[in-house]
Amino acid sequence: MLTKSQIEDAANRIAGHVRTTPTVELPSGTFGLPYPVAAKLELLQVTGSFKPRGAFYRMISSAPRSVIAASGGNHGLAVAYAARELGIDAEVFLPVTSSPIKVARLNEYGARVTLVGERYDDALTACRRRAAETGATEIHAYDQAEVVAGQGTVGRELDQQLAGVDTVLVAVGGGGLVGGIAAWFDGSIRVVAVEPGNAPSLHDALRAGHPVDVGVSGVAADSLGARRIGDIGFDVCVRTAVQSVLVEDDDIAAARRAFWDEMRLAVEYGGSTALAALRTGAYRPEPGERVAVVVCGANTDPGDLVARP
Amino acid sequence: MLTKSQIEDAANRIAGHVRTTPTVELPSGTFGLPYPVAAKLELLQVTGSFKPRGAFYRMISSAPRSVIAASGGNHGLAVAYAARELGIDAEVFLPVTSSPIKVARLNEYGARVTLVGERYDDALTACRRRAAETGATEIHAYDQAEVVAGQGTVGRELDQQLAGVDTVLVAVGGGGLVGGIAAWFDGSIRVVAVEPGNAPSLHDALRAGHPVDVGVSGVAADSLGARRIGDIGFDVCVRTAVQSVLVEDDDIAAARRAFWDEMRLAVEYGGSTALAALRTGAYRPEPGERVAVVVCGANTDPGDLVARP
Ligand SMILES: Cc1ncc(COP(=O)(O)O)c(C=O)c1O
Ligand SMILES: Cc1ncc(COP(=O)(O)O)c(C=O)c1O
Repeated sequence: MLTKSQIEDAANRIAGHVRTTPTVELPSGTFGLPYPVAAKLELLQVTGSFKPRGAFYRMISSAPRSVIAASGGNHGLAVAYAARELGIDAEVFLPVTSSPIKVARLNEYGARVTLVGERYDDALTACRRRAAETGATEIHAYDQAEVVAGQGTVGRELDQQLAGVDTVLVAVGGGGLVGGIAAWFDGSIRVVAVEPGNAPSLHDALRAGHPVDVGVSGVAADSLGARRIGDIGFDVCVRTAVQSVLVEDDDIAAARRAFWDEMRLAVEYGGSTALAALRTGAYRPEPGERVAVVVCGANTDPGDLVARP
Repeated sequence: MLTKSQIEDAANRIAGHVRTTPTVELPSGTFGLPYPVAAKLELLQVTGSFKPRGAFYRMISSAPRSVIAASGGNHGLAVAYAARELGIDAEVFLPVTSSPIKVARLNEYGARVTLVGERYDDALTACRRRAAETGATEIHAYDQAEVVAGQGTVGRELDQQLAGVDTVLVAVGGGGLVGGIAAWFDGSIRVVAVEPGNAPSLHDALRAGHPVDVGVSGVAADSLGARRIGDIGFDVCVRTAVQSVLVEDDDIAAARRAFWDEMRLAVEYGGSTALAALRTGAYRPEPGERVAVVVCGANTDPGDLVARP
C-alpha cells in the first residue's frame, strides 16, 4: 500500500532533479468563478508536465542500465529527460496519434522513439515485446509503485504551499497522479478526480467496483487516454474515497482558452481538464470551501491561442 | 521622494485588484546558467504584465471621473482593465507600431483606442492634446509617484517570497518598474537595470548625469521603448546606486525562446530582457550570489515559439 513515507522518500530522492513548482492563489472572479481558486502550476515542471517526478523516482530507485517506456507523450518526455540526466539509455514507444509537439521534443531529448499503433495500449504492447528482447527496465506511465509515489510529491508540495486547502481537483488518465496525490492526503482533504466523458477510466471503474476497459477519444486523449485505470491508483482512490466527475471536450477546450486569456498560460487539454470541472459546475464547492486545481501539463501548440485582430 | 511606506500603502490599496504572483526557484543548469536563479513570474499578473499595479494605485488614489493614457501597449491594457474594474471611462493612445496582440486585447477591455504616430512619444503628445480637451485624468506610463509606488509592490512581494536574495535584475523602459523596486529595497540588495542597447534610456542618463533623449528601436521597443527615462525612476536609481547593463536584440530573443523551451512560458521581449543579461554575462554574479529576474510581461504572439516537427 502506497504510504506518505514513501512519498517523502520520493521527494528526497528526486530533489534537485525536478522543480518545486509554484502555487498561485487567484481571487474570486478569475476564470469566471464566483469564488477564489488556487492553481498548482505543475506545467512549469521540467519537460512541461508532472511526469518526471515519477520517472526520476523509479529510475533512481531501480538504477537500471537501460529503460523503455510506452507513453501518450508526456511520460515519454519525462523518461527521456530523466534518462539523459542520469546517463541511462532510453527507448520510447508512442502511438502514431501522439501530438507532433511531443514527438519533436522527444527527439530533442535524444531518446530512441518508435511510433506504433493508434493508441497508448498499442504502444505498450510493442514496448513490452521489445523489452523482452532487450532486457531494458520498463518505466510504466502510471501503474508502478515508485511512479505513483513520485507523482504524489505534487500533493506533498501543494500541502506545504497551501495551508487550509479543502479540495484539490486532479485530471486522470491511468491514475498515477490522482493516486499519488490522494495517497499523500490520505483522506484528510477531498480529492476530486476529473476525466473527459470520452475517457472515463476511473469513473467507470468506480462504478464497476474494479478496473474495466473503456473507450478512449477526444481532445485530451494524448494525455488522459489510458484504456484502463491502473490498479495502484484505483486502490488508493477507493481507499481514500476520491470523488469522480466528468467533463466534455468543449469545456476542456474553453478552460484551456481561459488559462491563456486570464493568465497567459499555454496549457494542454489534459492540463485544463480539472479547471473545466469548476467552470461547468461538474464540481461545485460549498461556500467558503478552499479549492485548488492541478495544472499538470503544457505540451501544446500555443499557436491557436492568440486572438488575432 | 518615493518611500517604502508609500509602497506599503500601494500594496494595501491595490490588494484584491491585482494578483500576488509567484516566484519560482530554478536550479543551476536552468537556461544554461551555471548557478541557480529565481524568477518572479509577474507575467501571470492580470492583463499579462506588472502595469496594473501602478495603474490601480494611481486611479484609486486620485478617484478620477475619466482617465486617459498613452502607452506602448501594456500600460494601456492596465489602464483599460483597471478602469473597467473601477467603473471609470478610459481612453488610450498607442503608436501605430504597437503589437497587434496588445491592440486586440485593448479592444476587448472596452477602452476607446486611438493609434497615432510611430512611437510612444507621438502617442503621448496626442494623448495630452486630447486630455486638454476632455479634462480626463492622465495616468502616466511611468513618471508619476503613484505609478512608480504601485510598480514597487513587485519588489515588496519578491522580498517576502525570497528571503536572502542578493540581486534582482529588472528591465527598463521609462523606469517605473526599476524605480519602484529599487525604492522598496532602498540599497539593501543590488538592483541591476537591463536595457536593450537600442533603447538605453537609463544607461545614457546615468552616463550624462541627467535624463537625456535616446534613439529607440528593436524587438522590445513596444515595451522598453521610452525615449527618455522618467525623473522619478532616474532619481531612485541614482540614489540607490542601481547598476545598468545593456543586451542585444538577438540575446533578448534567445532568452525568450529559453523561457518557452525550459519553462513553457510565453514571454514577450521586454519580459525576457532581464534574463538575457545573465545568459550573455552582461551581468555576472559572484559565486554564491543569489539572483532573481523579474519576468514582467507575456503579451506576445506565442505562435512562433513551438519547434514544429
Ligand atoms: C498533462 C497530463 N495530465 C494528466 C495526466 C494523467 O496522469 P495519470 O496517467 O497519472 O492519471 C497525464 C498523463 O500523461 C498528463 O500528461
Ligand atoms: C513587459 C514590460 N516590461 C518592462 C517595461 C518597462 O517598464 P518601465 O517603463 O516602468 O521601465 C514595460 C513597460 O511597458 C513592459 O511592458
